[in-house]
Amino acid sequence: MRRVFVAGIGSTAFGRHSGTDIEALAIKAGDAAIRESGVSRKEVGALYLGNFVAGPLVGQEVLAGLVADGLGLGQIPCTKVEGACASGGIAFRHASLAISTGACDVAIAVGVEKMTGADTPTVTAALNCAMDNRADGVSGLTFPGLFGLVWKLHAARYGTTRSDVSSVVRKNKANGLRNPLAQMAAHIDDEAILNSALICDPLRLFDCCPVSDGAAAVLLVSEEVARACSTPMVEVAASVQTRGSARIAGHPDLCSFDATVAAAHAAYDMAGLSPSDIDFVELHDCFSIAEIVDSEDLGVVPRGQGGIWAREGRTRIGGDVPINPSGGLLAKGHPVGATGIGQIYETVLQLRGAHPNQVKDAAIGLTHNLGGTGVACTVNILRRSDA
Amino acid sequence: MRRVFVAGIGSTAFGRHSGTDIEALAIKAGDAAIRESGVSRKEVGALYLGNFVAGPLVGQEVLAGLVADGLGLGQIPCTKVEGACASGGIAFRHASLAISTGACDVAIAVGVEKMTGADTPTVTAALNCAMDNRADGVSGLTFPGLFGLVWKLHAARYGTTRSDVSSVVRKNKANGLRNPLAQMAAHIDDEAILNSALICDPLRLFDCCPVSDGAAAVLLVSEEVARACSTPMVEVAASVQTRGSARIAGHPDLCSFDATVAAAHAAYDMAGLSPSDIDFVELHDCFSIAEIVDSEDLGVVPRGQGGIWAREGRTRIGGDVPINPSGGLLAKGHPVGATGIGQIYETVLQLRGAHPNQVKDAAIGLTHNLGGTGVACTVNILRRSDA
Repeated sequence: MRRVFVAGIGSTAFGRHSGTDIEALAIKAGDAAIRESGVSRKEVGALYLGNFVAGPLVGQEVLAGLVADGLGLGQIPCTKVEGACASGGIAFRHASLAISTGACDVAIAVGVEKMTGADTPTVTAALNCAMDNRADGVSGLTFPGLFGLVWKLHAARYGTTRSDVSSVVRKNKANGLRNPLAQMAAHIDDEAILNSALICDPLRLFDCCPVSDGAAAVLLVSEEVARACSTPMVEVAASVQTRGSARIAGHPDLCSFDATVAAAHAAYDMAGLSPSDIDFVELHDCFSIAEIVDSEDLGVVPRGQGGIWAREGRTRIGGDVPINPSGGLLAKGHPVGATGIGQIYETVLQLRGAHPNQVKDAAIGLTHNLGGTGVACTVNILRRSDA
Repeated sequence: MRRVFVAGIGSTAFGRHSGTDIEALAIKAGDAAIRESGVSRKEVGALYLGNFVAGPLVGQEVLAGLVADGLGLGQIPCTKVEGACASGGIAFRHASLAISTGACDVAIAVGVEKMTGADTPTVTAALNCAMDNRADGVSGLTFPGLFGLVWKLHAARYGTTRSDVSSVVRKNKANGLRNPLAQMAAHIDDEAILNSALICDPLRLFDCCPVSDGAAAVLLVSEEVARACSTPMVEVAASVQTRGSARIAGHPDLCSFDATVAAAHAAYDMAGLSPSDIDFVELHDCFSIAEIVDSEDLGVVPRGQGGIWAREGRTRIGGDVPINPSGGLLAKGHPVGATGIGQIYETVLQLRGAHPNQVKDAAIGLTHNLGGTGVACTVNILRRSDA
């Protein structure tokens, strides 16, 4: 397998983009990534577009081709990929594969979603397309319901408290204050969290990521192309995609997502690294409790201690392993198809030493993107090429 | 690049499957492909699922993971890909890439769609997700409208007549009578075609493929795995994916789809073959006139002579180049995400000498799958491994 490098990145702010259509968001991010790289558009050999619900919510498919049109690319293969909330990560992994396998020398991954135009029942119905609707949807379960259940199990097994979980919310909302792309950053205290609306017991409003619009893009290149670029060299040391059960009853344990565990193991193997080598993590905190479970599944926090580490500040910048210095989904927002690529955007900025909420001496970063009830997962490890 | 072989195929009938949900259709086809190959499920390293509108029509995404669950596959990467009517072809190409690049030794491509449950306005709205809805959808244009326009241009430029186009309908509907999977095969004459309802002048009802449910699957393997299989060896000699404009105004010429022309050129190059080497073609006759244009774009019929060749029977079995011996989309049906893989299913049967409407001495076959207004295209060339 050939080495893969990030030559350019782009992102819109995450939030409400009421005046901008979905293609325009994706084209804006993609255009920024191409321009930054200095690579000619003629050199781009493949486009992968991560998107989840443009069909039901916007009535627009063929986004991969539409976006390639807008970017002025050639008659190259353009593919929309979907794996619920992991759609962006899957697009990134396929662009990375296109380079590592030698299918082409330059590939672009773009993620996009537009969700704020629809009312809550419509958005909820669209998000529930990520569930096995025959097995689980009929029970009336929604994603907040699933993660409320995860929380209760984690609390029963490990003693995780409301206060532990609130530490995650406070940290991510505060991290987001330094991120100009974040949608819902805030100085927030435990009382405000506790006073926010109850969504699915014990999850409250501030435990849930917002509904968002946004797009992000990454231009990936071979080593030879990377050497001619002026952007700082960041290498994709591992890019892994796995699956877990689509049905809740198919999961061996709801205190863990086996797709994450498998992806993390494979990513460490591929990169020749262990969890202790990771300088910071951007992970899939769709709900506050998810960060605690994910941090354990990724092996960067010992099993059962996600709540304690959050409470003790060990996942803050300056702690043992900073988690979500970008603000994560909780503060930054979650335009579903864009999220996995937005995590790469944040990670590349960190590895360039150019993040507005910089982790000191960040040399190796990990991203984690989880879809549905754990049905799809991607884990990537990126490193400064001098690290 | 490594050689890629077809080890197993499976397909449901195309038509109305009112009692069967979309996952069950896909699982049925995938299971048949795996069983036929004799390859262990544990060996499958990747799943690609082609689907277009399960989001808007069925309210179900994450189909790749759901289908892998049902097939009893491992924690492998499972990816839904979408490129409108070319979604199945794109899934096949990615499974083929997974083998040719060495990403894995066994990969499965499954295509599925379920469309008959919805009423006509709903299906039309869903199909229009394949258009650039800002640029073209607002004009009220639908796909029959587009192909009616294509027909008028072809008639004006090359003198193609109603009778020429009816020859395509008669041939494909008759071919379908020998295909047990076909939805709308018939003995039909020019008068019946002319008396069928006018859809978009000059297109009549029998010029249009039906709305269908169905699934098809192909298991692809490396040469080493293929040698251990008992199924007859069929090789993927070329698998190419291209894009064209998503907007009608972006096409240089509506008497041709440039994505098809580019894909065909690249496929012949990759296979080291020319159009005259092709023994038969399964192409994207979503409308009768499309077969005429596609046959010219693929280079198997001289430019402008698609109508004449059809009229003279040169595209029938026994003619210069049999086109759509399966009955094509017109007779077989068009469950959108399944179509591109259904074409592979038909082609493999021909190359095994086991098709119910066999082309004599078929050794090399070509498949062509076109999405949207020509925004996405795949062309594959398959050959008997002794050819």
